[in-house]
Formats: sequence, structure tokens, C-alpha cells
Amino acid sequence: MKKIKVGICQLSVKPTKEENLSKAEDMIREAANNNCNLVVLPEMFTCPYSNDNFPKFAEDQYGPSVSLLSELAKELSIYIIGGSIPESVEDKLYNTCFIFNKEGKIIDKHSKMHLFDIDVKDKITFRESDTLSCGNKITVFETEYCKIGVAICYDMRFPELMRLMALKGAEIIIVPAAFNMTTGPAHWHTTAKMRAVDNQVYFMSVSPARDESSVYVAYGHSLIVSPWGDILAEANEKETILYGELDLEKVNTVRQELPLLKHMRKDIYYIEEKTID
Amino acid sequence: MKKIKVGICQLSVKPTKEENLSKAEDMIREAANNNCNLVVLPEMFTCPYSNDNFPKFAEDQYGPSVSLLSELAKELSIYIIGGSIPESVEDKLYNTCFIFNKEGKIIDKHSKMHLFDIDVKDKITFRESDTLSCGNKITVFETEYCKIGVAICYDMRFPELMRLMALKGAEIIIVPAAFNMTTGPAHWHTTAKMRAVDNQVYFMSVSPARDESSVYVAYGHSLIVSPWGDILAEANEKETILYGELDLEKVNTVRQELPLLKHMRKDIYYIEEKTID
Repeated sequence: MKKIKVGICQLSVKPTKEENLSKAEDMIREAANNNCNLVVLPEMFTCPYSNDNFPKFAEDQYGPSVSLLSELAKELSIYIIGGSIPESVEDKLYNTCFIFNKEGKIIDKHSKMHLFDIDVKDKITFRESDTLSCGNKITVFETEYCKIGVAICYDMRFPELMRLMALKGAEIIIVPAAFNMTTGPAHWHTTAKMRAVDNQVYFMSVSPARDESSVYVAYGHSLIVSPWGDILAEANEKETILYGELDLEKVNTVRQELPLLKHMRKDIYYIEEKTID
Repeated sequence: MKKIKVGICQLSVKPTKEENLSKAEDMIREAANNNCNLVVLPEMFTCPYSNDNFPKFAEDQYGPSVSLLSELAKELSIYIIGGSIPESVEDKLYNTCFIFNKEGKIIDKHSKMHLFDIDVKDKITFRESDTLSCGNKITVFETEYCKIGVAICYDMRFPELMRLMALKGAEIIIVPAAFNMTTGPAHWHTTAKMRAVDNQVYFMSVSPARDESSVYVAYGHSLIVSPWGDILAEANEKETILYGELDLEKVNTVRQELPLLKHMRKDIYYIEEKTID
């Protein structure tokens, strides 16, 4: 029986990076104390979500955020899916999730592929592309448990990306994400459940806690969904650690009982990752 | 303002074709009397859903079911999306939806592309492929209102097909479908809502009424979902006509506010219909 205990740190993002790293450390230590094998942080956990802040809070892979997560992963012997931070690479900024194994090594990273440029009349306007560049890679990596796929927030709205992660072998898809008070109530649960059901994977969507005083108010409600689409665990809007136990046998059972991936009509439609020339 | 009034005939399928055609006629006439421009029937509306029945109830495009729907479409001057019937073509059977314009002409037909072969332990087992052959065509057709896509039941579980219908220009996707008492409660609402949201289309999933005495118990709960994912109308499990008014301007608004189709990363992944060689 292959089981993995996961912890989602739905932290409340504060105005300074120091506060956020300190809180992230506390929550990660607590999750590890509760026997988690894998701990996840939310999108932009170091940085209140705004285009003004992204350049100010940016750091590279040798900066304090990545160093802290690497040290904690090694000390506590856990996988850490490092939510995301504004990452600076040369003269560009990315919304990047660093991924650490139990030795504290960066085994992969994902930069948000689909930038969030939205303008819902009288509700919510945001243009990430004003400051951020997009990643160009589908992220699926090996662990001792199974293959895991990682994407960030708006990425989860694209069924092609989710499907390609499953076709690359992901049995768990993890998405640090900050839906807001318009898109959250409208689409958060439906999207998490459908990606799990379509691709017959465990799906974890990982939000910051809701802070009504923030410029961008995150929805909260981090979720762990089974490959059959059942919500196994759900946070409310407050700061909390959400726990779940993922039985990877369930992936096989669902894929045998309702063989969606086998029944795809690959003779009628292509879905493929493009090879970069 | 482009608006279209639609009626979904959630009829209760009886043991004989005559009863079912008679009921379908009554319901279509009532929907037309209530000013519907387009009326939809459920999957296998002529035939209790079983592999034993499909050959017995099968007919070709010159049979009584297609003739009746053609005459009604012409007389009432409405589009009819003819649910589905077991269609015989040479020595094969298909699960086919015939589509009629206001002149009663067959303007397209869709044969179910993904056959329903499922074996959920102690819950539901069905193998359509024991009797049926699969269609090989993505179905999107022109109407005086907009382009409309049609698929059948299990087809709606495949995000690639739904996406390709949207990319071919569909602003409404209609799916005659008979989910059961296992898959219905688990996946029906989530799937209908997500296909609408992902593809920014009106989505109509059209079930027969629930008949607890049947071998295959349909879930009911026909739905009309907006391009933002709101459920505009929902039936319960009983025989009924479900009405909705679709404002096609809403498709444009949603596609502008949250430009998902524009934001697809076509430089990273392909999604394409295969050309038959």
C-alpha cells in the first residue's frame, strides 16, 4: 500500500518577507511534526500579491526563501513544494515554484506558464504580464512515491496542461494558487474536482488564507481531491494547515474502473507537448 | 441582442418505441408552443438503455423516429437536436443524434465517439462496445443563431473533444446524456459546469427522467449552464420540460473578460483534430 501524508500550509501573507518566511518555517515544522512526507506552500507566499511588490520581493535561487526551504526539507526529511515566489533571472521576473527533495536538493522548478490577465467588469482587474514573464515548461518530476505534476494558479484553467501532466505520468497534481473573491466562489471547487476526475489524479489546490485588508483578496479554501473527484479535505478561509493521506492505489483503481485515459480517441484528436525547435 | 429560447425534453423512456415517440411529439409541441427556437431530446429517447434493446430498436435515417422529428421541426419551425437513437448503417449500430433545421432538413448528425465501457466494482457495469460502433467525427454546425456543437454522454468526459468544438466556433454545446446513479451524483454537475467555463460556451446536458424500475437508472437533472459556469436552469429527476433563454452576447463578454481561449499556450502544446488520411 503506497500512502503519502501531505500537509498544505494555507498561510496568511503579511506585508514583509521576514514575517512570511518565519510563518512558513513554523507551519512547515508543525506539518513535519505531524508526520507529513510532503508539505506545500501557496502561490506568492512571501509577497502580498501585486505588480508593485513582485520586483521588490524578487530573489534568485540563492536568495533567502529558497535557502530556507532547502534547509528545512533536508533537516525534516520531507519533500517541499515551495508555493511560489517572484524569481529574478537576469532582467526578467517569473512566478516560480521551487521543488525540494528530502535531501534539500532542488529537483525541479515550475514557472507559471499562463499569465493572469483578466478584466471582469466592476469586479476584478489584474495584469500579471505587466511585470512577469511566463515559463515555458510542463513540470512533472519523480519522487519515491510517484510522479508529481506542479502548475501555478491560472495554469489550472487549461485542461491541455493538466492532461499532459497526467500523460507524462503524474498521479498527483499540485497547484499553488490564489483565486480571488470573484473567481474563487465561481470556479475554484469545480476546477479542482474536474481536473482530478478527468485525469484520475489526486489534485491539491493550495491557497493563501483570506486577508480582507489586502489589495488582492485570496479566496482560501485549499482543497485535496481524490481521483474520483471526492473532496478529501477542505480548509475554510483562515490560516491553517490542511492534512490529507493519499492512497496511491486509488489512482489505479479509478483508472481501471472508468478507463478515461485509455478511452481517449487519439485517432481523432492530438494532444501533445510541442518540442522546442 | 442575439437570444435563443431553448427547451429540454427530459422524457421518461418507456418500454415501447411507440410510447416514446408519442411522448416526444407531445413534449416537442408543448416546447414549441412556449416559443422555443430549439428543442432537445435525451440520449436513447426511443429505447430503454440496454445492449439487448439497441438492435431491436435500431432504425436508419428513413425510419419512423427520424421522420417524425423532421416533420415536427418543419411544421413547428424549430431546430430539433434529436437526442439519440440506435442507428443501423449497413451491418453496424451507432448511438446517433440527428439534427434538424427549421425546414425539417437533417443538417448534421453525431454518432457517439467514446463508447461507455465501465466497470465500477459493486456499482455499475456496462459495455456499449458489445453492440455499438463508435462515430469518428467532431460535430459542429451552423445555425442562424451561432455555431453549435453536439456530443453524446460519455463524449463529454473528454476535454479534448469539448475544446475542439469551441475552437471550431461552437458557442453552445449540447450533450444528450444518460449518466447513472453512480456517475451522476459524482460527476454530472461538475462536468457540465467545467466544460462551460473552460470553453466559455453555453452547455446543455440533457438526460432522460429517472425511472427506478429500469435496468439502467438515469440520473435526470438536465442542466443549462452559462459560459461563466452558472447553472441557469436545472430539472429534478422527474419528467419535465426545462426552459432557458441563451443570450449569446454573454459568450463574447466572458471571452473578453477572462480570455481563456486567447491565453492557451499553443506554442507549448498542440490540440488538434487529426485529419483522416
